[in-house]
Amino acid sequence: HIDFDPSTHPHRRLNPLTGEYVLVSPHRTKRPWQGQTEPPQQAGLPAYDPQCYLCPGNARAGGVRNAPYDATFVFENDYAAVLPPPGPAPPVAPHPLLTTSPVQGACDVVVFHPRHDLTLSRVALADLERVVATWCDIYARRGTQEGIEYVQIFENKGAMMGCSNPHPHGQVWSLSVVPTLPAKELENMRSYALANAGGGSPDAPKAPGGRCCLLCEYAHFEVGVAHDEGRVVYKNEHWVALVPWWATWPFEILLLPYKRHIPSLLDLSPEEKSSFAESLSNVTKRYDNLFSCSFAYSMGIHQRPVPLRADASPDDDVAHLHLHFSPPLLRSASVRKFLVGFEMMAEPQRDLTPEQAAQRLRAVPEEHYLDASS
Amino acid sequence: HIDFDPSTHPHRRLNPLTGEYVLVSPHRTKRPWQGQTEPPQQAGLPAYDPQCYLCPGNARAGGVRNAPYDATFVFENDYAAVLPPPGPAPPVAPHPLLTTSPVQGACDVVVFHPRHDLTLSRVALADLERVVATWCDIYARRGTQEGIEYVQIFENKGAMMGCSNPHPHGQVWSLSVVPTLPAKELENMRSYALANAGGGSPDAPKAPGGRCCLLCEYAHFEVGVAHDEGRVVYKNEHWVALVPWWATWPFEILLLPYKRHIPSLLDLSPEEKSSFAESLSNVTKRYDNLFSCSFAYSMGIHQRPVPLRADASPDDDVAHLHLHFSPPLLRSASVRKFLVGFEMMAEPQRDLTPEQAAQRLRAVPEEHYLDASS
Ligand SMILES: O=P(O)(O)O[C@H]1O[C@H](CO)[C@@H](O)[C@H](O)[C@H]1O
Ligand SMILES: O=P(O)(O)O[C@H]1O[C@H](CO)[C@@H](O)[C@H](O)[C@H]1O
Repeated sequence: HIDFDPSTHPHRRLNPLTGEYVLVSPHRTKRPWQGQTEPPQQAGLPAYDPQCYLCPGNARAGGVRNAPYDATFVFENDYAAVLPPPGPAPPVAPHPLLTTSPVQGACDVVVFHPRHDLTLSRVALADLERVVATWCDIYARRGTQEGIEYVQIFENKGAMMGCSNPHPHGQVWSLSVVPTLPAKELENMRSYALANAGGGSPDAPKAPGGRCCLLCEYAHFEVGVAHDEGRVVYKNEHWVALVPWWATWPFEILLLPYKRHIPSLLDLSPEEKSSFAESLSNVTKRYDNLFSCSFAYSMGIHQRPVPLRADASPDDDVAHLHLHFSPPLLRSASVRKFLVGFEMMAEPQRDLTPEQAAQRLRAVPEEHYLDASS
Repeated sequence: HIDFDPSTHPHRRLNPLTGEYVLVSPHRTKRPWQGQTEPPQQAGLPAYDPQCYLCPGNARAGGVRNAPYDATFVFENDYAAVLPPPGPAPPVAPHPLLTTSPVQGACDVVVFHPRHDLTLSRVALADLERVVATWCDIYARRGTQEGIEYVQIFENKGAMMGCSNPHPHGQVWSLSVVPTLPAKELENMRSYALANAGGGSPDAPKAPGGRCCLLCEYAHFEVGVAHDEGRVVYKNEHWVALVPWWATWPFEILLLPYKRHIPSLLDLSPEEKSSFAESLSNVTKRYDNLFSCSFAYSMGIHQRPVPLRADASPDDDVAHLHLHFSPPLLRSASVRKFLVGFEMMAEPQRDLTPEQAAQRLRAVPEEHYLDASS
């Protein structure tokens, strides 16, 4: 008889937000790596780069000049993936399997800081609070615009993640539809609320109408019950960062408020916003410290769909504000995890357990390695 | 009034195999690219590399020596992602959101050819027929093994796709479960058969019992009706290669038999197998010729779940054999498409239309650029 050991025996974990599995094969980390290595992330950048189209006062594609901003700076993407309504009506499908659906919206760029050489991990707390405030503003502004149904805030950090400019910035794509992944999460959160009506942990926060919130229940369990088992990486007054049970990327993090049910950025109190900024600082510093590099990731904020109008569906309030961080690095600053063949064709697969990842992220110092006096 | 133009106006297309959308933003190809570029794919490789753990006669990790094979060569992966049954029973979930499911199986490596420096695009047709025969064998062998429910054949080609050895090879992961993506495709194919019972195109091939097959209907439409509209890249007696209406990757290809309903590799006639080998040669040559490089991709074969037993569900016969090719390159041999931030957090997005991609793949010569006498 052998006992099950999650760090030895391959197994599958269910992601309740997507309803899909991840294959965990922890012993695979033992295999030697002779494959592609990543070039070092850019270091020694100037504080101001005259060639950068995001630096204050510089000209962008199309010739528009950036304001001489000194905090955050928002502008519409010069190469937007969606265009404002109304668009022409799409054609009738020539066959039921070839359908075209309309989509409209707007794409914004959010520059986090005037300094070309900084990252969220290296700016002051006050600067992070300004980033949070800017996200709140843009969510409110785009979320009340006619025809917009979802405001997707995200950041591609690092060349490895397809980011073409190291100047600290993120994007906001506001669409006339709820995109696939948030739609799937919302559907699963609704089903969870229904299936657990009147149930759930008595101490966990509840959504409006006493409904069970999947993420509040989960965070409550991780913080309160399973803390020692160790998927929690960092926790402050209002927010918790953890490697979720169902993480796909090696050092994936889910960052969310755990004290009460919070559908969107607009529902945050001033203290919850500061606490959010603090947790952003802590998580991004830990990431950089893990392999002593400027850690690449994609980050996305999921929250309540819009419109922000009185007649909006109360069903949308099952949403609970959360951030996903999906970083590709696995072994070192230069060896990443590839989600390719099997993962693209069959099912995501990971090589170390979420518990092992969380333990390593907990173990790194909280001070940024570039600031540490040795 | 503006007419809808698919190569100008952003729109969404539904992938009927997954039930999910892709956002098409064709005008985005106009934006300048200052981001990461890929190193050149390895060229000038030796025909035999004494350091390669896949070359004939060489030693592998763990010390086992490869046979001095002269055609294809199959062995069990030394770092398998799943292990043979029986595994220990997974623990009871400490919370309903933290479930562990068992998974067992086997991981095989299929070496395509003894020559270290070749690729599927450069081997003789007879060699490709041997690869097809080897896939058939392994599907039959693993598919009759106790406890196996799916045999996932795939290839990661190129360092960009996480392949750590240029020696031509693919993998086969045989699992005790049907993995997420094939399961989703089968579910959608079943729903399609149900929803279209008694319907579909009268000339399209039908699945057993006269049932409608999503992929037979689709291929029939593309080959017969929509040929001029141009998503078909190549077609021979039995197989068609096309950039599907719902393609996510810039030059994604779906390769499938279109003359009759064929659930799995084991249902192919000898002529259909030769025709398959020919189409593999044609598609991989076109890929290399597109940017005059050894073109990276992930390839996966989807087909009928196993076990191959008399008591297997006839429902499984809705499956129609097909190959997905997902290549990352977008603009040149060194500029790829990144499916990152928005794509990872919200919805896949593509920058050129499938029709534009198909047109470019049709336009390249059929002879491999390295063999072309200039
Ligand atoms: O098995 P390999 O070739 O060592 O590894 C490659 O393929 C696997 C299956 O798609 C992936 O999980 C790995 O990330 C990738 O590097
Ligand atoms: O908009 P950017 O930064 O030019 O482009 C980057 O982010 C986009 C949104 O995730 C992706 O579609 C692109 O592939 C990526 O390179």
